[in-house]
Amino acid sequence: MDATRKANLDRAFNPQVIAVVGDKKITDYMWLKSVRDAKAKVVSVQIDENEIPGILEMGFENYPSLADVPGQVDYVIVAVPRPVAPRIVKDAIDVGAGAAALFTSGFAETGEEQGVQLQDALTQMTHEANFNLVGPNCMCLYHSKTGIRNSADQWIGEGGDIGFMSNSGTHATSFVMRARNNGLFPLKSISMGNSISVDQGDWLEYLGDDPEVKSIGMYVEGTRDGRKFFEALRDVAARKPVVIWKGGQTREGARAAASHTGHLASDMALWDAMIRQTGAIRVDTQDELMDAFKALHFMKPFTGNRMGIVAQTGGQSVLVSDAFGREGLTVPDLTQESYDILEPIVTVVGGSYKNPLDVSGSLTSIERGREMLDTLAADTNTDIIVIEASIGFISRRLERQGKTMDDLIDMFKEFQESTDKPFGVIATWNQDEAALAEFRIKIADRGVAVFPSFQDAARAIRRLREYYVTQAELAAGSQGPWRSRRRGRRH
Amino acid sequence: MDATRKANLDRAFNPQVIAVVGDKKITDYMWLKSVRDAKAKVVSVQIDENEIPGILEMGFENYPSLADVPGQVDYVIVAVPRPVAPRIVKDAIDVGAGAAALFTSGFAETGEEQGVQLQDALTQMTHEANFNLVGPNCMCLYHSKTGIRNSADQWIGEGGDIGFMSNSGTHATSFVMRARNNGLFPLKSISMGNSISVDQGDWLEYLGDDPEVKSIGMYVEGTRDGRKFFEALRDVAARKPVVIWKGGQTREGARAAASHTGHLASDMALWDAMIRQTGAIRVDTQDELMDAFKALHFMKPFTGNRMGIVAQTGGQSVLVSDAFGREGLTVPDLTQESYDILEPIVTVVGGSYKNPLDVSGSLTSIERGREMLDTLAADTNTDIIVIEASIGFISRRLERQGKTMDDLIDMFKEFQESTDKPFGVIATWNQDEAALAEFRIKIADRGVAVFPSFQDAARAIRRLREYYVTQAELAAGSQGPWRSRRRGRRH
Repeated sequence: MDATRKANLDRAFNPQVIAVVGDKKITDYMWLKSVRDAKAKVVSVQIDENEIPGILEMGFENYPSLADVPGQVDYVIVAVPRPVAPRIVKDAIDVGAGAAALFTSGFAETGEEQGVQLQDALTQMTHEANFNLVGPNCMCLYHSKTGIRNSADQWIGEGGDIGFMSNSGTHATSFVMRARNNGLFPLKSISMGNSISVDQGDWLEYLGDDPEVKSIGMYVEGTRDGRKFFEALRDVAARKPVVIWKGGQTREGARAAASHTGHLASDMALWDAMIRQTGAIRVDTQDELMDAFKALHFMKPFTGNRMGIVAQTGGQSVLVSDAFGREGLTVPDLTQESYDILEPIVTVVGGSYKNPLDVSGSLTSIERGREMLDTLAADTNTDIIVIEASIGFISRRLERQGKTMDDLIDMFKEFQESTDKPFGVIATWNQDEAALAEFRIKIADRGVAVFPSFQDAARAIRRLREYYVTQAELAAGSQGPWRSRRRGRRH
Repeated sequence: MDATRKANLDRAFNPQVIAVVGDKKITDYMWLKSVRDAKAKVVSVQIDENEIPGILEMGFENYPSLADVPGQVDYVIVAVPRPVAPRIVKDAIDVGAGAAALFTSGFAETGEEQGVQLQDALTQMTHEANFNLVGPNCMCLYHSKTGIRNSADQWIGEGGDIGFMSNSGTHATSFVMRARNNGLFPLKSISMGNSISVDQGDWLEYLGDDPEVKSIGMYVEGTRDGRKFFEALRDVAARKPVVIWKGGQTREGARAAASHTGHLASDMALWDAMIRQTGAIRVDTQDELMDAFKALHFMKPFTGNRMGIVAQTGGQSVLVSDAFGREGLTVPDLTQESYDILEPIVTVVGGSYKNPLDVSGSLTSIERGREMLDTLAADTNTDIIVIEASIGFISRRLERQGKTMDDLIDMFKEFQESTDKPFGVIATWNQDEAALAEFRIKIADRGVAVFPSFQDAARAIRRLREYYVTQAELAAGSQGPWRSRRRGRRH
């Protein structure tokens, strides 16, 4: 992506003037509403006399065409019927917009002749003009700081640090919502749709070069320029964590992907090899994506594989050990020093398998819990500390002591800050599912990694360990031919 | 298990008189409270003068020993320190109790000499007397109809039809709670603990012979008599579904299991072979256990593998296809007849991959949704119907039409009753996690199978299909040598 394109995308993400073309009452003026709180002047372009009164009532100025909008337009949202789309994109090019985002669908993804032809026309037009077209068939752009959104339901505000790009509008939109529920702050989320102009490689490079973006996630169905994407991934993943969630992994999914965004989803083995070689992080679901980001943002980096675990009961000790064992992590005995400290405070430690600590009767207070965590963290046999928080069980006990869940969360936060070892909480089932949801949101909001199950925690920790190990190997130059090639090319 | 033992267990589950021995204030009289609402006379046996006043205050009669309790005692809960346990079990034998459940822990699971000796003594005593000892190191018995419980937090009432047995007290107790949150009705749940007297094979046979038990689940860490267990499983699994959740699958988990209930967790490959041969259902987590029971109890039986799917958006279409594809299920094109019906009502069907139906703009009303489901169900290319319910998305749309989630659930229930094909709902993420939890509970309570994610739904459906296919093969006598052996032996 050349400097002009990049500067224009920056204008679109940080606009002075936003124009929404073709918004309608039937969809409740979704696009005007999605950007009405943006730090920008928002205007409407609409020629349908039935739609204009509603738009004016909402307080927006309306113009008959982009050319009539006074001043420079930085970001154009296009929601017109598909046959009209090329003309509006042409207008956006002519007025020198930073980018146009094309919500309209019905292009190559339909497989229909008219759709394919229209997409070809858009592709040629934008390539010739060196113009940034987002989509088509997309939910446009999100930037938390300037308040442009994929949907009016999304959070906006300061402090975002995650970049996300997605072939799916649903996932681009929901990423922002779910990230906030998980205590994470998205900065930019891009619904790429069919990605005919700004493609996967471009977006990756763009997010990679954004100094405010600390980590990058993507939902990707396919890419038209695999070589370009691979080069961008190799470059960016060496600088910041990239989490890749690939849709269309199976024959069934690939067929759906083709009709969703018109991408041919290539063999998952190729993607896997690329992810491995570049040191990116692979996930398979949105839940796993969230877990990976929580581990990246809230847990200190690690390369060891020895777990120190606090479990609520004996039955849970077995399951949590299985979960970590299945992912190739170990649950070693602790040192004798630790047992000497724990013996008087953990009822069953004398006779029990000595890690996980099965604390059933022993977690008598928050201070007692903190002692156990401190002992695990100080032990030279552990690399990573996790605790199971069985919400119903603990909260009843805390209540009797006049304490609340917030006191427990404070303790977890303080413990996390006191140790160099990565720390995570596994918040397990509860009769009161709503209370559990509340606990998860609260603890995540304090910046403590919280996982919904033993298996989810084990998988995320295994993946993050692979990531840090690979990054260390890549940094040491020990990772095979491509690394040498790049080094040769660059230096 | 001989007829006497069985009759005695029946007495314990349907007691006239329950005696709780050694309950204490420090644990908030947990055992007396857990059975205070049982359909039985509940008495206390306690000799500690400091504890007796609290017990009398709660309105229980107290006796100095089991022998002093008037009339026949059917079920004894023992919560005394471990050195005293053998004497109390001896008393229970002497008064002719139906069973004693030994909450007390600290036996062979500790690996300590005293614990091992005490367990040996208990084993010998109960074997000689042909006496039913539940545990030790357990959370005792639950029976919804008579109101005996593992914990006062558990639901009791009529209508239960699931039997559960568990080496873990946590899982025995939480199974009942979680089952109710999933719309399922547990009948009997047994915390087996170290299972030295009534063992895994006995319990399985007992639940298998209970005519009110329609399906059986178990959390099992190991069994001392593998041959007996295998025989019981082979027999029972041929008559009713048995879901097996094995703890101690890995080296890490097996070590934890040994110190939890003193069972040696044998090679998972052996368990897998046994599960496959007997036509039981394997699960690996409590979530999977719940999903298996929902599919068993709420979905009609099936052996086909062709999915008919309604997804909310294009991005979700790809993911749901991947999820089912990964589990080896297919997502075929529908018949032309279906497309002729769907074309006018599903906006994108003309150009889209034609299953899953991507209904983004098309799910305009509950009636429209019902039409889509009816069309999928009537299609000769489908065997199983699922719909994604994206709660936040749908509920906003329903609200504008003056409808609620309950109306949608009604429609799902009516559709389910109208078709012979199995039906499931996948309730996906929502900004409001508490509302999502409420929806899940509500729809499950109506007897509609609801799964928390595409992958969970696909896994459960794949497993249930394997189950029904295997059962059909076993019934046809085509399942290899052991079946023939059994047939030879039996007929």
